[in-house]
Amino acid sequence: MGKHVIAEFYECDYETINNHELVEDIMLKSVDLSGATTIKSVFHRFSPYGVSGVVVVSESHFAIHTWPEYGYCAVDVFTCGDLIDNQAALDYLKEKFGSKNVSVVEMKRGVLNLGVDLHHKPVGN
Amino acid sequence: MGKHVIAEFYECDYETINNHELVEDIMLKSVDLSGATTIKSVFHRFSPYGVSGVVVVSESHFAIHTWPEYGYCAVDVFTCGDLIDNQAALDYLKEKFGSKNVSVVEMKRGVLNLGVDLHHKPVGN
Repeated sequence: MGKHVIAEFYECDYETINNHELVEDIMLKSVDLSGATTIKSVFHRFSPYGVSGVVVVSESHFAIHTWPEYGYCAVDVFTCGDLIDNQAALDYLKEKFGSKNVSVVEMKRGVLNLGVDLHHKPVGN
Repeated sequence: MGKHVIAEFYECDYETINNHELVEDIMLKSVDLSGATTIKSVFHRFSPYGVSGVVVVSESHFAIHTWPEYGYCAVDVFTCGDLIDNQAALDYLKEKFGSKNVSVVEMKRGVLNLGVDLHHKPVGN
């Protein structure tokens, strides 16, 4: 099945999470640290503040939305296969965002009725 | 707060969910129907099968991953503000994917500690 980590990062550093280039760099590095493979990414900075971005990976996606005005980021790490180290990604994000308070929920995706594991997609296609 | 709809579409039409252009069209139309505003989208087709795509919207994101070989799609509709009709999007996706079995979970995002509503981002910036 797929594993979907739904993380709330509170009390983050304003400047960091309002900088879309920095947020993109941090997210791409977290993908690398997890062992996932980046396919494409798209990031956008809103005015006056806020960043949204998604990295499509072979194993599904990493997504982030930031509300710098509240020191808050919503992060999703949705991966398939058993080889991804989600915790490494989350630890890195917590450190880089300077978050003092993280809440994490993990859901399994595609369980009902399938009875099979969802494999990540082949790389390089 | 943000509203995150996590939907599993089972028993979908193989050809539809294996066609990345069609999946992108359907997802973009579902964004329109919900009343959300598309910022950027990125879609990718894997070989031999499977589509991944994300639409970044002012209100957060719509994401999809398809496993045509299992007739399964994982869909996320993450929106902020009270003006988005998620159900219209889900109904449209169910119809277009020919899904006979849909499972939906809704989570609230960014609730803990904030005590404020998460507004969507201004359009056009």
